[in-house]
Amino acid sequence: MRALRFQNGALSVSDVAKPVANGEALVRVTLSGICNTDLEIARGYAGFEGTLGHEFVGVIESVSEARPLGRATFNSVPSPTVGLLTPGARVVGEINAGCGVCDLCRAGDPRHCSKRTVLGIVGRDGAHAEFLKLPLANLLPVPDEIPDDRAVFTEPLAAACGILERVSITEDTRVAVIGDGKLGLLCAQVIATTGAEVTLIGKHRAKLAIAERRGIETNAIAEAQQRKGEFGVVVEASGSPTGFAMAVNLLRPRGVLVLKSTFHGATEIEAAPLVVNEISVVGSRCGRFAPALELLKQNAVDVDSLISEEFALSDGVWAMRRAAERDVMKVLLRP
Amino acid sequence: MRALRFQNGALSVSDVAKPVANGEALVRVTLSGICNTDLEIARGYAGFEGTLGHEFVGVIESVSEARPLGRATFNSVPSPTVGLLTPGARVVGEINAGCGVCDLCRAGDPRHCSKRTVLGIVGRDGAHAEFLKLPLANLLPVPDEIPDDRAVFTEPLAAACGILERVSITEDTRVAVIGDGKLGLLCAQVIATTGAEVTLIGKHRAKLAIAERRGIETNAIAEAQQRKGEFGVVVEASGSPTGFAMAVNLLRPRGVLVLKSTFHGATEIEAAPLVVNEISVVGSRCGRFAPALELLKQNAVDVDSLISEEFALSDGVWAMRRAAERDVMKVLLRP
Repeated sequence: MRALRFQNGALSVSDVAKPVANGEALVRVTLSGICNTDLEIARGYAGFEGTLGHEFVGVIESVSEARPLGRATFNSVPSPTVGLLTPGARVVGEINAGCGVCDLCRAGDPRHCSKRTVLGIVGRDGAHAEFLKLPLANLLPVPDEIPDDRAVFTEPLAAACGILERVSITEDTRVAVIGDGKLGLLCAQVIATTGAEVTLIGKHRAKLAIAERRGIETNAIAEAQQRKGEFGVVVEASGSPTGFAMAVNLLRPRGVLVLKSTFHGATEIEAAPLVVNEISVVGSRCGRFAPALELLKQNAVDVDSLISEEFALSDGVWAMRRAAERDVMKVLLRP
Repeated sequence: MRALRFQNGALSVSDVAKPVANGEALVRVTLSGICNTDLEIARGYAGFEGTLGHEFVGVIESVSEARPLGRATFNSVPSPTVGLLTPGARVVGEINAGCGVCDLCRAGDPRHCSKRTVLGIVGRDGAHAEFLKLPLANLLPVPDEIPDDRAVFTEPLAAACGILERVSITEDTRVAVIGDGKLGLLCAQVIATTGAEVTLIGKHRAKLAIAERRGIETNAIAEAQQRKGEFGVVVEASGSPTGFAMAVNLLRPRGVLVLKSTFHGATEIEAAPLVVNEISVVGSRCGRFAPALELLKQNAVDVDSLISEEFALSDGVWAMRRAAERDVMKVLLRP
């Protein structure tokens, strides 16, 4: 089968063996999305080699073993759903596959299992391929209301929903999101569904307009810099170290800075204001898929506007270059 | 009266006018303690000029106005206590004096009032002097069981207690405190009173021994470096930027790093592990005095071992030099 690989420091679309399910589910990928993490891996970050990609929608090809989906599994798929996870079912899949035996995995959440593999990121071939494999417990059926080119956003949308697992946000919380890229746009929209007053801060008029169409207030950088101390929660989704300093400045005392994007390498921060103003900095990575699927089903979040372009998987190397260009948002790959 | 002043970039013990109470209480200082913050101000940090010092015990000299101590005041002194705040009463005092009218002040907590003055730190002459003034609402009577040379630790002990306002710590929490200076020793002892398993990490055998005598486990740096991912909460009290990286390394996924000491200027951190492991970094500054007084009354914390030396206020400049020396802990000043 074809797969977009990063190996020996180079990207290529290669012919590789179809995965052997070996106790897991084999999924035929119908559409996958290129994430900034893919671009970072292709720059040599994280030391991953293999098939890239962790955002996908696909169809179950085969299930090599009907493992019980009890308490010990990740998604705690309710029993009516289990019957839907059979060959032919349209699915998305959570990307962390745990050891299954540690305390975290047994509590049903392998996202921090120290022995986890992560689809296309850590020790497990990814989704930019004709087929992938994942534990059956990681898969969730896609409701009919959600077409493939929306379902492919489940993973990044879940990551945005993950903020709500880490920080209390209510109707009374004033929230700023820094960064008008696809991550920032998803975060702002998810947070707006809580009823909180959200301001998206960014540099790009066209991208800010996507949020404005959903009734979200937006600020250019210069405007936002006048709003020192106004926000209870600020989400840093720009991926730029300057975003950190800006976030600290926007927060009221005892406010919460959510670090959603990673800055690789060392970042210079001023620690003193964190202590003096008693700021909390909260890291946030992966979220659960169920809330994200629900938002997509209700059409509560605009993901259509985030799609810049679709490429055939065979043009995956070009697609990665395109995804790295300024102002490009989501680039999709179709096997 | 005599006062230890920092002015025009220089430290001196000067003769200055006795404070005019002007609606506040006038306190005759009996003992004050030199904090690292004093040393940092004397290095030019924070732009404060005036009388240094914010750790003290004293005796009320006069109260210029009997303001009602209702819900709107900081300490919510219970009514039986109000009668005790009369001339001659032995007192300690919370150091943040708010505007009294903003939402925070009206909720009874001026610690983050944007117009606050802070004793010896922001816009208000401090405690290394024969007299100081503070709002009556900031003062708390010192129980007879607590001698002056313990009561003078109320402020730093309250700062350690402040950690428990910011982070949930139970008997089941594994906590590490990095830094065996006086701040770290107070934090470790306060946290141990919760029943949590505490490990104090430091470089100085003699200082670690103080914690060991209170039944607290200690680790040298090299030992601690073997304990990656073991702790749910790590308190950074070393004041060293290397302490931050060590703390991140010691934390389990979703653990909490309490920033208790400030690093001035820019600090280089690795932000990626905060996101990947979903670490929270929580700044912590001032705490309430009531819990600290209660611990001192119960003799639940050893502060006697933290006293290195006592100087006369007139030797305040020498005392500051001594306090800045390696291995010296608390230096006290007696007016």
